[in-house]
Amino acid sequence: MAAYIEPRVLKGFRDFLPQAETVRRALTEKIEKTFRSFGYVPIDTPALEYADILLGKGGGETEKQIYRFKDNGDRDVALRFDLTVPFARFTALHRGELAFPFKRYHIGKVWRGENTQRGRYREFLQCDVDIIGNESPAADFEILLLIRSVMRNLGIDVNIHVNHRGLFNRFLSHINIKEKSADVLRAVDKLAKVGADETLKSLTELAGGENAKKILEYIGAKGGFRETLDRITELAGGPCEESERLSSVRQYMLDALGEDGEPFILDPSITRGLDYYTGIVFETFLNELPDIGSVCSGGRYDNLCGLYSKDKTAISGVGTSVGLDRLIAALESLGRLPDANSGSAAIACVNIEKSGEYQALALKFRQAEIPCEVFFEHGGEKHLVKQFVLAEKRGIHYVIIPGENPLSDTVTLRNIATRNNSELSVEQAVKTILSQN
Amino acid sequence: MAAYIEPRVLKGFRDFLPQAETVRRALTEKIEKTFRSFGYVPIDTPALEYADILLGKGGGETEKQIYRFKDNGDRDVALRFDLTVPFARFTALHRGELAFPFKRYHIGKVWRGENTQRGRYREFLQCDVDIIGNESPAADFEILLLIRSVMRNLGIDVNIHVNHRGLFNRFLSHINIKEKSADVLRAVDKLAKVGADETLKSLTELAGGENAKKILEYIGAKGGFRETLDRITELAGGPCEESERLSSVRQYMLDALGEDGEPFILDPSITRGLDYYTGIVFETFLNELPDIGSVCSGGRYDNLCGLYSKDKTAISGVGTSVGLDRLIAALESLGRLPDANSGSAAIACVNIEKSGEYQALALKFRQAEIPCEVFFEHGGEKHLVKQFVLAEKRGIHYVIIPGENPLSDTVTLRNIATRNNSELSVEQAVKTILSQN
Repeated sequence: MAAYIEPRVLKGFRDFLPQAETVRRALTEKIEKTFRSFGYVPIDTPALEYADILLGKGGGETEKQIYRFKDNGDRDVALRFDLTVPFARFTALHRGELAFPFKRYHIGKVWRGENTQRGRYREFLQCDVDIIGNESPAADFEILLLIRSVMRNLGIDVNIHVNHRGLFNRFLSHINIKEKSADVLRAVDKLAKVGADETLKSLTELAGGENAKKILEYIGAKGGFRETLDRITELAGGPCEESERLSSVRQYMLDALGEDGEPFILDPSITRGLDYYTGIVFETFLNELPDIGSVCSGGRYDNLCGLYSKDKTAISGVGTSVGLDRLIAALESLGRLPDANSGSAAIACVNIEKSGEYQALALKFRQAEIPCEVFFEHGGEKHLVKQFVLAEKRGIHYVIIPGENPLSDTVTLRNIATRNNSELSVEQAVKTILSQN
Repeated sequence: MAAYIEPRVLKGFRDFLPQAETVRRALTEKIEKTFRSFGYVPIDTPALEYADILLGKGGGETEKQIYRFKDNGDRDVALRFDLTVPFARFTALHRGELAFPFKRYHIGKVWRGENTQRGRYREFLQCDVDIIGNESPAADFEILLLIRSVMRNLGIDVNIHVNHRGLFNRFLSHINIKEKSADVLRAVDKLAKVGADETLKSLTELAGGENAKKILEYIGAKGGFRETLDRITELAGGPCEESERLSSVRQYMLDALGEDGEPFILDPSITRGLDYYTGIVFETFLNELPDIGSVCSGGRYDNLCGLYSKDKTAISGVGTSVGLDRLIAALESLGRLPDANSGSAAIACVNIEKSGEYQALALKFRQAEIPCEVFFEHGGEKHLVKQFVLAEKRGIHYVIIPGENPLSDTVTLRNIATRNNSELSVEQAVKTILSQN
């Protein structure tokens, strides 16, 4: 006998069994379909890139987490840790071939050597969507509307919390602490995690007690979108380019969706910890499960591919990333995962010699868009129960028991959930299954 | 200014621009849909695995080609180079959780440090489909039928060349050169590449002149399926388990698809060079482009996960792998790549202030399953021509020019290909676009 190798998976990596993978594919398909409905197009980039390209912007944290090695040609290479850096490299390289504004999505795996004790995975699917090469508030609004559409198509009610980092910076200038902007943003970003008292403490250390109170007043502004906008505009020193942009976005919301029932909230406490956002920023929370955190975050950035581009014209953009793992966990705990087997069927095997005709019978169901497996089990009718059990294990909804002449006889249609049997023509069986979907 | 890093891609790796990626996704979607219509379910496994697991069965060739390195935890890891080895590991690990026969597909990237001078890529998508845990000829036939369905759904006519390696081995036993089986198989596998003369020469070296002629007679047997089967059965010493299996598969073909126009050819020269096939083997050739080689090959194997399993009950299976890159190249040279933009539309921007209403208008098209982009370009009607050019660049078929009141006025529907403008209500515009698909 050959040597034995223990089957195992690296820590932080996952096998996806059929049930889980079916759900994951059903979700990404729905998301992708929504992206496409807005006219976004897909791209792909290599999993492996030159390490200097991926690390270009990264600090120490990225360096520690990245899978980096020498390939057989002694090149210094690494696995991509997000889809943003490869997109920047891609845009710089193919700038002349792209039609701007460029609206793209990218769904692909990324790898990070994260600490798995914090429940993080080392391999996960990212799902990014961006508009680059357009600076209008109309582009900002389109990304927000796209998030709304994605979530609606997944059957989820959300609130999308919107803010403008530039307006916040203007406010910091107004109270003369602009130079501490990065630290203040980071402190504010932790508000939800550490609470108001702790935030006041760190802000006081950073900017003094008076300013800390002003900052909390700014980020705590509440009310309708207009009302909040007026308040923070005033705190920032009056109307400016940034408040005008938020005002335009608000107008688009009203024009597109009307006054009521819409998911957009102006929330001055949203800042996004990452440094590269410069304009609008946003986070998305499930109405039914707000505590799991944002399932879709993003914002506007100034200069996507400056590092990889000799061309001094910056390409700005606005985009978002769907947190698939978190979304799946949320849908699971809400009991709202899609049933990808809905309306599927199997042809029972009464006589294995008839497998050719069983396949011809199955083709009739497949042509009617009903997924239809053919069972191979031997043994005739007394083993039908085994086949019902197999169907149930597989999540198949109907078993079709063929007659002596599979293509001309009536069939028995077994509903696995109700255990109900009906004697039907093939056409009737097709109709029955389709009508139950 | 920040440091400049030259944007570049590793040799043998590829960026996929929107056009190419759209095509690739459209194809994999169609293939996946066919798999699902037969009741196959998806799985996924990590890109990165312990090196000993991936190299378990591999010889020197695999070792040289694999991307292998030490991760940050000093583990000896490697990127998967196919989907078969991870599937074996997966099955051994999850045996208790799977319902057999297990019919799965797996579409995912694999990595090989191949010599790029031979036009090979170092990263490519594999697309595997298998039935494991069932030994019946009905399972062999189902995989063949599945290949036929996949190709038909892609609009391609193929011939599927089928053979049985076990029958060929029985023939080799019959002429007393069974012990040279592996070498003979390899020599025969090169027939199409090097020609009959060269093959005769290497077979003569291996097995002597008389045997070489007998082997060429066996692999050269031609005619209808039945006729060829009778001939090779005779050459192999008479009816046996293997000839019976081919006979059953033939009967299923007739029962399922009738006598005529079906793509299955019994071709005793098909052996597949790889060692692990033990039963039926097959290759798929395009009728219009046979010279590009097989686009879908596979066969039956005895013991999928012996190396990773202490359980002595072998799991046999039968499966195939779709050669996506080759298939795309073939469809491209036949001018039959899918037009993924078919029926797509864009809302022209006459007045950027109305972007909210434009989005509301676009939602009406999206709800009718028409992908609809909203343009952001400024400048009013005099710049419409620029927007038509952008639409053409993007492969968009229709531009919708909204009126002063986008949601209540009629629109002008511009057909980009014909340059024809029509004044229509929104409902009429939706109908016109749908009717042209």
